[in-house]
Amino acid sequence: MKQKIAVLGAGSWGTALAMVLVENGHDVIIWGHKETQINEINTHHTNAHYLKEITLPSKLKGTSDLKECVKDADAVLFVVPTKAMRDVSNQFNQVCDNQPVIIHASKGLEQDSHKRITEILEEEISPNHRQAIVVLSGPSHAEEVAVKDVTTITAASNSMQAAEYVQRLFSNDYFRVYTNSDVIGVEMGAALKNIIALGSGALHGLGYGDNARAAIMTRGLAEISRLGVAMGANPLTFIGLSGVGDLAVTCASEHSRNFRAGYLLGKGNSLDDVLNNMGMIVEGVYTTKAAYQLAQERHIEMPITEAIYDVIYNHTDVPTTVKNIMLREHKSEQEL
Amino acid sequence: MKQKIAVLGAGSWGTALAMVLVENGHDVIIWGHKETQINEINTHHTNAHYLKEITLPSKLKGTSDLKECVKDADAVLFVVPTKAMRDVSNQFNQVCDNQPVIIHASKGLEQDSHKRITEILEEEISPNHRQAIVVLSGPSHAEEVAVKDVTTITAASNSMQAAEYVQRLFSNDYFRVYTNSDVIGVEMGAALKNIIALGSGALHGLGYGDNARAAIMTRGLAEISRLGVAMGANPLTFIGLSGVGDLAVTCASEHSRNFRAGYLLGKGNSLDDVLNNMGMIVEGVYTTKAAYQLAQERHIEMPITEAIYDVIYNHTDVPTTVKNIMLREHKSEQEL
Repeated sequence: MKQKIAVLGAGSWGTALAMVLVENGHDVIIWGHKETQINEINTHHTNAHYLKEITLPSKLKGTSDLKECVKDADAVLFVVPTKAMRDVSNQFNQVCDNQPVIIHASKGLEQDSHKRITEILEEEISPNHRQAIVVLSGPSHAEEVAVKDVTTITAASNSMQAAEYVQRLFSNDYFRVYTNSDVIGVEMGAALKNIIALGSGALHGLGYGDNARAAIMTRGLAEISRLGVAMGANPLTFIGLSGVGDLAVTCASEHSRNFRAGYLLGKGNSLDDVLNNMGMIVEGVYTTKAAYQLAQERHIEMPITEAIYDVIYNHTDVPTTVKNIMLREHKSEQEL
Repeated sequence: MKQKIAVLGAGSWGTALAMVLVENGHDVIIWGHKETQINEINTHHTNAHYLKEITLPSKLKGTSDLKECVKDADAVLFVVPTKAMRDVSNQFNQVCDNQPVIIHASKGLEQDSHKRITEILEEEISPNHRQAIVVLSGPSHAEEVAVKDVTTITAASNSMQAAEYVQRLFSNDYFRVYTNSDVIGVEMGAALKNIIALGSGALHGLGYGDNARAAIMTRGLAEISRLGVAMGANPLTFIGLSGVGDLAVTCASEHSRNFRAGYLLGKGNSLDDVLNNMGMIVEGVYTTKAAYQLAQERHIEMPITEAIYDVIYNHTDVPTTVKNIMLREHKSEQEL
C-alpha cells in the first residue's frame, strides 16, 4: 500500500534510498537544510554534488521545512551524518504530529557517549512520536543503487513486524531487503567497517597489493567481531551482509569515501588536507575515536583500530604505522 | 636451520613459494615435467609463462627428474593441479628414499571421489615416506608474493609441531604464516572459494557492480561454511585467512584465474573458449562439480554452486542464471 515517507538527509545515500521508495510507488519527501540544494532537487531534478550524472524522478520532492516534511508520515527515514543525528532527531520530535515507524541508514557511533544511532533515536524521540526503530544497512554504494544495480541489504529491528514493514517498503527487483533481529550487531558492523576501510585505503595508497588487503580485511573482521560481541551482538551477524558484505564493498572500492580518505593518507597527504578535499563526511575518522575508546574501556584487542587512531589523532608516520601493523607478531590463526 | 626442500610443480604458485624458500636460505629444487620450462628456469632464471617479468633467484634449481628432486629432502611441497595430485604423489612414493614432511598448497577436490588433497596424499604416500602432512593456504596471488608484497597465509596440520615447522620454513618479513589445526576447514575453504570467484567474475562480466559482488561473496561464504561444517570443519575457520581472506582476494582481483574465467563467461564466451584461452588450470570448474555432487548427497543448500554448475555442465544461459540467483527469494538474513 502506498505510504507517505519522509527522508531526512539529502546526501548521496538519502537521495538514492528516496529514489528506491519513489520507484516503489510511495509518496516521498526529502528534507535538507541547504535551500540551494533543495531548489536543485525540485527544479532540476538533480543532486549533483552527491550523485553525479543522475536524474532524479520528478515525483521526488524536496523541502527545507522539517515540519512540512514529516507531516502525516507513515515512516521517517533518518540519513544524516552521525554527529547531526541527535540534533535532527530532537528537532523531529518537536515537530512530529503523529507516530511513524522510524528507520535509519547512517553508520557511526556518537562521539564521547559511544552510543549507537538507535540509542540516540530512542533518547531523542518521545515514544508518542515513534513506533519501532529499524536500521537499514549493508553493502550498498549509493551510486550503484541510483542506477538500479542489484543490491542486497539488511533491515534489523527488535520488532520483526517493523523490519518486515521496511522490507516491503524498499524491496523490488534490484533492491533486496533481508530482515534481521540483531540491531546491535548490524549497527556495530556498519560503524566499525569504516575504520578497516580507512586502513585498506592506506595500504593501497602505500602500494601494498591484494594479498595485504585480504589480510587487513580478515584481521579487521576479527576485531570488529570482538568489540561487537562485547557490546552484545550475535557473532553470526558479522559474517552477514552488514559484516563481511559491507566490509568487502567498502575495503575494495573507489566509491567508498572512507577507502578514498585512507588512500589519500597513504599517498602522503595530511589528514586536514584529506578531510578538506573530500567534500563529504568521512564517518570512519570519528568512529575510529569512539571504537578506540570503547576498546580501551573494555580491554578488547583492536590492533588495526589502534594503528588508525595513532595515525589520525597522534599523527604517527603512516608508512611506519602500517608496516608495524602488517608485521605484528602472531603465531596461531586462532589468536587473530 | 637450512633445509633441503623439493617443490613439486613449477606453475606460478609453486615457483613463487620456491622463491620464498630460497630467500629464507633453504636449498630448493623445483620439479616440473616440461623439459623446456626446466631449462628456462636453470638457464634464463625465468618462468615466463607463469610469472611474467620476474627474475628467479639463481640459486633456484629445476629438474624434470622426480627422484633427483626429492632425494634426501627434509620437506616436499606439492603444488600440482588437483587432478594430477594422485599421480604425482604416487610417483613420489615410488622414488622417495626417506621420510620428509609433506606440504601441499593446491586448492581443489578430487573428481568423483570428492576427496580433499590431504586425503589423496595419505592414500598414495606410504607412512614410511612421510611425516605429518601440512596444508598451506590463504589469500595469496603468486604474482604479489614473487615481488615480495606482504602476504598472510595459514599452515594447517593435525600435527602442531609440523605446522610450526612449516611456519618457520616460510616466514619472513613479507610472508607471514599462521598455524591452524583445522585441516578440513582450511582445505574446504581453499577449494570452494574458487566456485564463488567464478560467480563473482561472471557478475562483473555481465556488468553488475560492487554491491552485487559483496552480495555473492556474503551468500557464497554462507554456503561454503554450510558444506564445510557438514564435512567436519570448524565454522570459525571460514572467517579466517583461508575463508573470508581467500574469498576476498579471489572474488575481486584480475590476478585470479577463476575470477577471470567467470568474467569471460559473463562476457558471453563459451566455456570451451574460456578454458582454451586461459593457458592454466581453472580449478573452480572441477571443484564446482565435486561440490555440487557433495551438496546433493548431503542435502546441503548451495544455490550459487548449483547455478554455476548449471552454467558449466548444463549450458544454461549465463545472464538468466545469474539474474535468477541474484533475485532468489529470501526473507530473513538468518536463512542465508
